[in-house]
Amino acid sequence: MAFLFNSDAARGAIFRQALARELPDLEFYHSGECVEPEKVRYLLTWNVPNDVARFRNLEMLFSIGAGVDQFKPETMPDRVKLVRMVEDGIIRMMQEYVVLGALTLHREMLAYREQQGRGLWQAHASVQSTDRRVGFLGLGILAQAAIDRLTPFRFPLAAWSRTKKTVEGVACFHGDDQLGDFLRGTDILVCLLPLTEQTSGILNARLFSLLPVGARLLHVGRGPQLDQGALIEALDSGHLAAAMLDVTDPEPLPENHPLWCHPKVIITPHIASVTEPHTAAQSVIENIRRHRAGRNPIGLVDRTLGY
Amino acid sequence: MAFLFNSDAARGAIFRQALARELPDLEFYHSGECVEPEKVRYLLTWNVPNDVARFRNLEMLFSIGAGVDQFKPETMPDRVKLVRMVEDGIIRMMQEYVVLGALTLHREMLAYREQQGRGLWQAHASVQSTDRRVGFLGLGILAQAAIDRLTPFRFPLAAWSRTKKTVEGVACFHGDDQLGDFLRGTDILVCLLPLTEQTSGILNARLFSLLPVGARLLHVGRGPQLDQGALIEALDSGHLAAAMLDVTDPEPLPENHPLWCHPKVIITPHIASVTEPHTAAQSVIENIRRHRAGRNPIGLVDRTLGY
Repeated sequence: MAFLFNSDAARGAIFRQALARELPDLEFYHSGECVEPEKVRYLLTWNVPNDVARFRNLEMLFSIGAGVDQFKPETMPDRVKLVRMVEDGIIRMMQEYVVLGALTLHREMLAYREQQGRGLWQAHASVQSTDRRVGFLGLGILAQAAIDRLTPFRFPLAAWSRTKKTVEGVACFHGDDQLGDFLRGTDILVCLLPLTEQTSGILNARLFSLLPVGARLLHVGRGPQLDQGALIEALDSGHLAAAMLDVTDPEPLPENHPLWCHPKVIITPHIASVTEPHTAAQSVIENIRRHRAGRNPIGLVDRTLGY
Repeated sequence: MAFLFNSDAARGAIFRQALARELPDLEFYHSGECVEPEKVRYLLTWNVPNDVARFRNLEMLFSIGAGVDQFKPETMPDRVKLVRMVEDGIIRMMQEYVVLGALTLHREMLAYREQQGRGLWQAHASVQSTDRRVGFLGLGILAQAAIDRLTPFRFPLAAWSRTKKTVEGVACFHGDDQLGDFLRGTDILVCLLPLTEQTSGILNARLFSLLPVGARLLHVGRGPQLDQGALIEALDSGHLAAAMLDVTDPEPLPENHPLWCHPKVIITPHIASVTEPHTAAQSVIENIRRHRAGRNPIGLVDRTLGY
């Protein structure tokens, strides 16, 4: 019975050690190592290998990241459980990045960056946090964790999700019918949606037009959710004031892409949240134990929803 | 009996309304209005007017800001109580700015800003917050409030103050003897000291040399505390990795000053924390009530310490 690790060697060494200690009956193989295919019960990877069908006894397919949009669920047998990465390291980094992004947009850091380039010392009128409404597109584990960190700053908080959810202290909206109401009351829009057919291209000209004038976008979902041309138009027209993007389409963003030098855009190279191997190994071990005990793993993907 | 307001008209209108409601026996004058000098018991100002001596019955001198280094206490009669501004608005904005600054420095936003200018998509190794030690120079009301907001992010926290203080969850150092130990264990140094003779020039080459290689500076104290030339040298030598400055010397920073275009420096024009007139008016009203009841106001300046 084997665990196959298909990611970078440094993380692999940490996983190997943790699994040897806690699940000693499992043989550990790195993707470069020779393993009898029928032994493989667990596979951890970012992209599904082309030859995955040879792992005839595969039971669980773990994503090394929080997203599973890179998996093609329809190509995987139903018996294989697809599992997103839900681990403390990812959650904490996302909390940091969302607070950093929200405060960056709230405190006009783009305007000050531009002024610094010109040697201009000029204060902008400050908006109190109680007058800056932060709205989350998506209300999963990462969004809820980010909301926890933002709450003490006293921004009025709202969230929109596909299905109805309730979070204390957050104005919760759901479904297509309520999307407009949610957007009209959002000054800083944080996108933390999973990438699915429904969310592809969701950040488009129509959506931007429903946000108030001067709204800002913090995009930490997936690149294909954003119509980048529509964003540039909304920024250039003045309807949107600023955007901070951690994801683009494609990635890496080509060197000559107009987003790079747009004065109202901050770009980071998909670093908001990175899987931390120590805590990720613990999460995978816990999920294998749950699976063996007949329980569903944390982060199990619903194939009909795609996340 | 009169209250003289010597600051901008917009804030003055808010103060006038609040005082009329809550302390109706006090006449309110804006600095442009004609007032019999002996009527003035309370003066709110940033700089002490040259003709302050004519207010022979002055009892309290309120600073419109959190600092009082612009007051020359030696020129004021002992009977006048000098009062720093301690109000919710200042505190909340400083909490925002310190968290924004600490996360900006922690998450390598300066490196990503520089890369964005070149169209370079490249992730840097991430450091867990539990491995990034944040140390505060100064442990007054603002520093303690900022520490409250930083605590959930799990940075190891330390602070240094002139006299011994104790804050739960914070490694507390004090006095000249312990400054070196404090600095050697600090990766992000946050300066929130008041400006006094003792703290003028405290951020100098010797202090920087005691910080670990790769340390970062977040300066939200006062401009004259920083030896700007020494900072540039420490950044250029690679000993310090980055700095974020909200205060400079002089202010405004001249257009051609080398700090503006230094790739390892973020400058904001003294906007970290701004007095919010509604909450500031409540704070001043409360302090006048305390004074009339024979109690000391909140934010009373100790003239021997200068803060």
